[in-house]
Amino acid sequence: MSDIKSPESHPVNPTSIAAEPRTPICVLGLGLIGGSLLRDLGRLEWPCYGWNRSEKTVTRARRDGFDVSNDLTATLQRAEQDGALLVLGVPMFALSSLLDAIKVHAPHCGFTDVTSVKEEVHDLVEEHGLTSRFVGGHPMAGTANSGWPATMSHLFEGAVWVVTYDNAVAGDGKGKGANEAEELWLNTWARVVTMAEAVGAAVVPALARRHDRAVARVSHLPHVLAEALAIAGDKGGPLALTLAASSFRDGTRVAGTEPALVRAMCENNRSSLVVAIDETLELLQQAREQLANPDEDMRDLTEVGHAARGRFEARAGRKKGEGPNRPIIRVQPGGTGWVSQLESAESMGAQIGIF
Amino acid sequence: MSDIKSPESHPVNPTSIAAEPRTPICVLGLGLIGGSLLRDLGRLEWPCYGWNRSEKTVTRARRDGFDVSNDLTATLQRAEQDGALLVLGVPMFALSSLLDAIKVHAPHCGFTDVTSVKEEVHDLVEEHGLTSRFVGGHPMAGTANSGWPATMSHLFEGAVWVVTYDNAVAGDGKGKGANEAEELWLNTWARVVTMAEAVGAAVVPALARRHDRAVARVSHLPHVLAEALAIAGDKGGPLALTLAASSFRDGTRVAGTEPALVRAMCENNRSSLVVAIDETLELLQQAREQLANPDEDMRDLTEVGHAARGRFEARAGRKKGEGPNRPIIRVQPGGTGWVSQLESAESMGAQIGIF
Repeated sequence: MSDIKSPESHPVNPTSIAAEPRTPICVLGLGLIGGSLLRDLGRLEWPCYGWNRSEKTVTRARRDGFDVSNDLTATLQRAEQDGALLVLGVPMFALSSLLDAIKVHAPHCGFTDVTSVKEEVHDLVEEHGLTSRFVGGHPMAGTANSGWPATMSHLFEGAVWVVTYDNAVAGDGKGKGANEAEELWLNTWARVVTMAEAVGAAVVPALARRHDRAVARVSHLPHVLAEALAIAGDKGGPLALTLAASSFRDGTRVAGTEPALVRAMCENNRSSLVVAIDETLELLQQAREQLANPDEDMRDLTEVGHAARGRFEARAGRKKGEGPNRPIIRVQPGGTGWVSQLESAESMGAQIGIF
Repeated sequence: MSDIKSPESHPVNPTSIAAEPRTPICVLGLGLIGGSLLRDLGRLEWPCYGWNRSEKTVTRARRDGFDVSNDLTATLQRAEQDGALLVLGVPMFALSSLLDAIKVHAPHCGFTDVTSVKEEVHDLVEEHGLTSRFVGGHPMAGTANSGWPATMSHLFEGAVWVVTYDNAVAGDGKGKGANEAEELWLNTWARVVTMAEAVGAAVVPALARRHDRAVARVSHLPHVLAEALAIAGDKGGPLALTLAASSFRDGTRVAGTEPALVRAMCENNRSSLVVAIDETLELLQQAREQLANPDEDMRDLTEVGHAARGRFEARAGRKKGEGPNRPIIRVQPGGTGWVSQLESAESMGAQIGIF
């Protein structure tokens, strides 16, 4: 396998992954996320292969040296045979039929996904009766482009990769005595975390519903506000667009995202996003009343907003590219109290590592 | 005068200003805008001097080689004597008393301002009976910092500098027959435009109220939305802040601005900003209803928003720093039909030049 596109400027420390046996990984769906993951795994010489529905993508990926197929049944049978971890890289609408196929052709494989919402995926997996071998995932990386030509090495370097633990069996006091299903789940969870770390991501644990609530606030709401700001500015006509400078440019940047992608994010996370929009409506309504009354002022909004931005900067780094300041917690999958450790890491927004 | 702080990397083309006699310019208030203007004028060897209330600022500016004083009366008398153009660089709250002093000590000087809203300033000038020698100005440049230490050369390079024409006397058919007051105003207007062009800005004409409506949409609204987004994200706690990435970073950037500066902008432009917020509330309310109803979708908001961002990019350049695409119209102050030319330039968001 070769990757001539990206420089190897951020090599992953091999000692961090050497401890784990490199069991095969099978990536199903080779779009921006799935394809980039396959590139990174190949670069790390991790045993890996993939499947994509479209022949064109398969041809392109093969030309780049990857072991891929457009025969789903054969790919799943191969994964079942060599005990591969499945990574579901297909869009939400294609998940259900893929789960059907997994149930039939890879009845013992653990699997994860890379979709941007998690509760709906967990529900779907549960409907298919596959909960005990599923660990939800959300690598928070991407570009505005999609498809195999958009894939790249090092896409996940420094990104947060959320891993859910809804299906965790509290290991307290059980340890080695856990039954087979428990072991499969724990093993899947550890393999997902190891894979995410191997490609340079920071793993953050979260329950599916808490993940969805958080991304509604910090990812989906920014898109909704950017769209609204773009429209309100544009309504001012050519003069307004000429006077628009960096505050408008930055505030509307993500309105440049393909509408279909924005809809997919937002419409798959309706209830959490409604809550975030309602809070925003309340803040804006209050600011509006304060502006309409010459005896009132905007001290509240501006001071609380400034403090909030300060807390974000304190955590994320003051500038783009500056390293984040978040706690790191080491956990032992299935060890005593490990689910409480995950809960505590989640509440702190901490990164975790496996020991 | 010297300016050792900034490299002369973007020299202003001297031919564009050589045609105009360099009548003196007196800058009153040496904060970020006024001080940076004085730096640029000094760099261009334009006859110029300044005043600032604070002795500390005066000492600093003198140390940097500038001809400045903290004696307002003496400075205004000097300006009156040598027919200087006055540039009012003080904050809104200090304008009224400065206008009082100008009325007494510089009764014949034309003047402009650099405040971020224009209707309130025009009203204040009218209350002082100084309309016939006032041209409003708004250089749309700045940084998050303030005061003399924040001043810099080339701050206005490539920025839009709005110049109002509310007080224009329609020159149609009058031309040279205009009376003395008309000539003073026309002369002031031409001097303001020439000065703005000399420091590298693009002059865009606008009536005060149209300027205020436009900046409410593209400058003040982005600040209000950034504050609200910062608060809504922060309310998600540490997990949300850890998951926040570039959409949140860009959407909240201007919430990092000093609250007092945001308030000054917004609270001086209340009625226009209320209109812009009301439109935004309506858009968000609609999106909220569509999300709350599983049979509806966000096609409207995402597609109209995407198209609006596209129009902004088409005008402003797709990337920061890329040159804008706006029409340029040449006008002759006081010439036949010149006010119509300004109106037409305004409606197109066009840049103007004097011929």
